[in-house]
Amino acid sequence: MEAYDVIIVGAGPGGYVAAERAGALGKRVLLVEKDQFGGVCTNRGCIPTKSLLNSAKQYRHALEGGKFGVHCSDVSFSLAEAMAWKGETIQTLRNGIEFLMKANKVDVVFGNATFVDSHHVQVGETVYESAYLVLATGSSPFVPPIPGHDLSHVLTSDGILELQQAPKTLTVIGGGVIGVEFASFFSMIGTQVTVIEMMPEILPMMDGEFSKLMRRELKDVTFHLGCKVGEITPEAVKYVDAKGNSQEIAAEMVLMSVGRRPNTAGFDPLKLEISRQGVVVDEFLRTNVANVYAIGDVNGKSQLAHSASRMAEVAVSHMFGSRNQRMRYNAIPWAVYGQPEAAGCGLTEQEASKQGIPVKTATTQMRANGRFLAEQGKRGSGLVKVVAHAATGVILGVHLLGPYSSEMIWGAAEAIEAELRVQDVKEVVFPHPSVSELIKDTCFAIDHAL
Amino acid sequence: MEAYDVIIVGAGPGGYVAAERAGALGKRVLLVEKDQFGGVCTNRGCIPTKSLLNSAKQYRHALEGGKFGVHCSDVSFSLAEAMAWKGETIQTLRNGIEFLMKANKVDVVFGNATFVDSHHVQVGETVYESAYLVLATGSSPFVPPIPGHDLSHVLTSDGILELQQAPKTLTVIGGGVIGVEFASFFSMIGTQVTVIEMMPEILPMMDGEFSKLMRRELKDVTFHLGCKVGEITPEAVKYVDAKGNSQEIAAEMVLMSVGRRPNTAGFDPLKLEISRQGVVVDEFLRTNVANVYAIGDVNGKSQLAHSASRMAEVAVSHMFGSRNQRMRYNAIPWAVYGQPEAAGCGLTEQEASKQGIPVKTATTQMRANGRFLAEQGKRGSGLVKVVAHAATGVILGVHLLGPYSSEMIWGAAEAIEAELRVQDVKEVVFPHPSVSELIKDTCFAIDHAL
Repeated sequence: MEAYDVIIVGAGPGGYVAAERAGALGKRVLLVEKDQFGGVCTNRGCIPTKSLLNSAKQYRHALEGGKFGVHCSDVSFSLAEAMAWKGETIQTLRNGIEFLMKANKVDVVFGNATFVDSHHVQVGETVYESAYLVLATGSSPFVPPIPGHDLSHVLTSDGILELQQAPKTLTVIGGGVIGVEFASFFSMIGTQVTVIEMMPEILPMMDGEFSKLMRRELKDVTFHLGCKVGEITPEAVKYVDAKGNSQEIAAEMVLMSVGRRPNTAGFDPLKLEISRQGVVVDEFLRTNVANVYAIGDVNGKSQLAHSASRMAEVAVSHMFGSRNQRMRYNAIPWAVYGQPEAAGCGLTEQEASKQGIPVKTATTQMRANGRFLAEQGKRGSGLVKVVAHAATGVILGVHLLGPYSSEMIWGAAEAIEAELRVQDVKEVVFPHPSVSELIKDTCFAIDHAL
Repeated sequence: MEAYDVIIVGAGPGGYVAAERAGALGKRVLLVEKDQFGGVCTNRGCIPTKSLLNSAKQYRHALEGGKFGVHCSDVSFSLAEAMAWKGETIQTLRNGIEFLMKANKVDVVFGNATFVDSHHVQVGETVYESAYLVLATGSSPFVPPIPGHDLSHVLTSDGILELQQAPKTLTVIGGGVIGVEFASFFSMIGTQVTVIEMMPEILPMMDGEFSKLMRRELKDVTFHLGCKVGEITPEAVKYVDAKGNSQEIAAEMVLMSVGRRPNTAGFDPLKLEISRQGVVVDEFLRTNVANVYAIGDVNGKSQLAHSASRMAEVAVSHMFGSRNQRMRYNAIPWAVYGQPEAAGCGLTEQEASKQGIPVKTATTQMRANGRFLAEQGKRGSGLVKVVAHAATGVILGVHLLGPYSSEMIWGAAEAIEAELRVQDVKEVVFPHPSVSELIKDTCFAIDHAL
């Protein structure tokens, strides 16, 4: 058998993008996947949650349309049907990835990869040879060994995406993105949701002002911050609150969303340097073994689907392309979907202060905006914040909480990548009426000069 | 009375932004408005239409939620209630502008402005003096003298925004942005809508491929292109079709949306150069009279609210600021709201070809995108097109048709302003899953290099 130019293990948003890009450059590519195209993102992460959140949003629209002149009766939500729509979405995307692989002449084998050495990977009976190896094996939900963690009503994000009926009560352990999105979803469809978070605030990447507002906006969700879960029983979750008092809360179902761990099992023959965070890589995503790259969750650098995809591009560029790209982490946007949406990119004011970077900032209320008012009304809440370098005016961070945040934030990533200044964004013409205009307004709030 | 630094006539998105910016710089500003804060945009344009379109969208969600698991019965739409919500939105925005004027210490007088000379404006009995004068008087709907144009069932966008009950049939004369948005709105709430357009295609600023798809997506609207209306009777609109045959179509109501004309009445004492298009201005928005500026629709350069606001900034910069800003028209985004949304910025492929600019382009289907699929399904339609200079790769145009277009397009305006290349956007990290990712995908479709 002819050797491949690259073998990629894992067909998630890291692996399949690496395969697509390398294939597009005319390389001989083998993609190995143990389960299905799309990885966690497509099958048990980004996509299914966004599909469900969209269903829930439609449900809230039907329930709350009165003020807009829309009336209806007997409004009901079928989780089973929402799950079926979600399933169709996933299947279509998997087919899309399959098509992409064919279009880019990528060979695909399904099965467990066994690493013989850094040039040989065995799947089933066959040993494949390759010049380069890309590890894109992802991560798995971490379940801490709390007493009761293995009870049948304790689920991770994997299990909860298979439910056909919503629980009456749900306790979410962990207030990161995954925990908050599920909390938002289930509270939107009528479940009584409680979130228990060990840290003093939810969503650690978020500006402090924003996470406070986020909690307030998720008004049907109860948050217990600074609390440590001690035990899960069939009826309740027991925890110690921020003041050191023992508490318990009844829960028909428990979602464990405290984090994810890199999938590094079987890597021993590769003799890789692996830290607690994951496989150690340089700015080209290269491991300590020169022909082996590790991209996405498995290196623990940035556990986001789009980070994995970008890492794929940088790695492929370093193997087969211009070699002039480096992985940068300063302009990677994140988004939290649900009601409300939030998104951010770059430094928060708090991070800047911790790093000793002098900044000027401004925050504007979304309710000053025409489109926001037309769609949300004057009691709606939302925020836009821009963080810029105090001396140069270069934009270091943009933070959004409110409708369309996830679709507006790419312009912020672009601004930070291009090192645009507040003054530059002030000269950009934004379409009216759009919520995005607030980004320009916020830049003017930082600096009135014309 | 102490002289003002600047008198601004017209409190629309040109005038009130000019007042706000000049006030923020500490200038003595007088804003004269004959009607209400916000101009056409707030009161009879951008904002009311977006409010109504949002109501209609909620109505469609209630009607079509079944596939997402959302069920309800007796779905109805009250135009009167949607109009009431619209009215509240407008009132809140007017209040917001009033607040902005106070915050920036702008004096405001309501009444008709009479121009004494380029330094003196009379309102009522009072003559105000000023160093500079900014004309921001806007435009009015143009009603061509077609027989029957003055019948009571023939409305312009002003009148149609006051309806309390939807007509059963509506004929829209003119398929520009205004015509298409009203066509979309009324067809969404159940009116049978026909659009008659004189040109061979609707939405002249749109890429040809996109306007075709737009017509297809507005599937309950009938379009007659290349047709010239000859007469309106109480029962019908009579026109000559593209083949020269006489036709007529029954219409309970007619919307006249063939264009708008600059409001230049009363300008004679200023001795301005005025063309058919409007007041002639240079790149600083200065007229032939050195201390008089004309911004927004009245100069006819770009009849968009956000163009007017940007012109306000450039004019104020030239009067009181750095003077280093110039009005540029190459990166002004436009958006068409409704279902579907569309937006664009910069050159279309057709315009580039007309101007002899060599370009490379790519178009991608939105149904390849995860979020689009989750929310619209695999039968949904949408397009993204990027136009770049063939030699340099500099992005010259971005065109979107599909959900969130209006909120994504600012990043395209920013890219064109910053003269980013396709390669630069390929290195930007877009959030996953978002429809915006398609912009990056389209850049990769233009150029696979890494």
